[in-house]
Amino acid sequence: MTRFSAADSAHALPELTARIREFATEREWHRFHDPKNLVMLLASEVGELVAIYRWVSTDEAESYSQSEAVREKVSLEIGDVGIALLELCDRVQVDLLGAIARKIDINAANYPQETSRGRTERP
Amino acid sequence: MTRFSAADSAHALPELTARIREFATEREWHRFHDPKNLVMLLASEVGELVAIYRWVSTDEAESYSQSEAVREKVSLEIGDVGIALLELCDRVQVDLLGAIARKIDINAANYPQETSRGRTERP
Amino acid sequence: MTRFSAADSAHALPELTARIREFATEREWHRFHDPKNLVMLLASEVGELVAIYRWVSTDEAESYSQSEAVREKVSLEIGDVGIALLELCDRVQVDLLGAIARKIDINAANYPQETSRGRTERP
Amino acid sequence: MTRFSAADSAHALPELTARIREFATEREWHRFHDPKNLVMLLASEVGELVAIYRWVSTDEAESYSQSEAVREKVSLEIGDVGIALLELCDRVQVDLLGAIARKIDINAANYPQETSRGRTERP
Repeated sequence: MTRFSAADSAHALPELTARIREFATEREWHRFHDPKNLVMLLASEVGELVAIYRWVSTDEAESYSQSEAVREKVSLEIGDVGIALLELCDRVQVDLLGAIARKIDINAANYPQETSRGRTERP
Repeated sequence: MTRFSAADSAHALPELTARIREFATEREWHRFHDPKNLVMLLASEVGELVAIYRWVSTDEAESYSQSEAVREKVSLEIGDVGIALLELCDRVQVDLLGAIARKIDINAANYPQETSRGRTERP
Repeated sequence: MTRFSAADSAHALPELTARIREFATEREWHRFHDPKNLVMLLASEVGELVAIYRWVSTDEAESYSQSEAVREKVSLEIGDVGIALLELCDRVQVDLLGAIARKIDINAANYPQETSRGRTERP
Repeated sequence: MTRFSAADSAHALPELTARIREFATEREWHRFHDPKNLVMLLASEVGELVAIYRWVSTDEAESYSQSEAVREKVSLEIGDVGIALLELCDRVQVDLLGAIARKIDINAANYPQETSRGRTERP
């Protein structure tokens, strides 16, 4: 196994996905990582992100996020969320970027600019 | 605004992120999309993914995921989760791929292969 | 099966729990309602509550909650969350009120008034 | 402030709710506990419950729950979830038991026994 350094130029999604798969295989965790369990992993990691922001006001959420200590915590949790999401996509064979691009188009159709402007009343 | 087609060759993260930002700006949703609110968006979208898998057994989760109807639902929800995650990263200025790569390295250090093999007892 | 009316004087937890168990048994849902699945049910229902509050500011969250339409939506989601929680407690044989009372005591020990006053920096 | 012992005979919801409110007031946390933040508290606590169950199979979830160590962890997290839920209900003035009873009736109407029996295909 080669160590994947954050300094590498290429952090492309396929490489990261391969690295995550290798990580689970090396530890014989593959059998625990069925799609249901990975969705729970994702939910629990997002729960930790929610915990970071639960007491800050919406007005202060942006400046709070820029403090060094918070940024570091948020970055680590986003890493966990990203790992869970990539592993889930790998396991259910969904192309993450394609799924995002397709949903942006669907949202654009569902929320026309004219009627959606500045309104929070949306599903 | 140019329509972003899922058939495009380039669905690179920066382009998708720019498209998501543009989408919010066009609708004047930027002021609602502070980091706290985006974390809640992420949590609610993950909740919908959890809902899809709540009644299936772990044994059947993989085959369940491959049925066409489920794959379509899962793909749409993954799109939503991905959008929320990219928008959050954009707003708090965290490099998603770098954060994932860094967390993989941290996990590799925290879970040595020898002692972690086949064990689910981990934080 | 007798219909449980909200106007009844006795909505004691044991009665509601029995009613929820009966509901699942009548529909032969008992086998789907293992503790793991019920935790996912709980998480997905809480996700719907999160969705209601995701775009409102913290300053406006209280007045927003008092509008009739929101109150109704919140009340329905709280009902779902409560059902999932009671069913989980029933299935894992945890006394909900005892668990709450015990955790209040633990929190009181962990967060002394003197050092906790007005501070949000807590786990 | 009197200490609330788990051995007390009366753990009625109103008393626990009063105790939770008193707890927040004593620490001047009331201003952080708007409905939005309390929903996030609830979501993050449920995330911890999800974490406990993420790697166990559905088949083993029941026996897993009965091991002493897991029961203790689950009981503590259920305590946290219950506290967040009671505090939210107190803040938005929703009667928890009434909301549960009402939702049971609604579910009974939406899922007739005849057509729902043994089927997981439901929203």
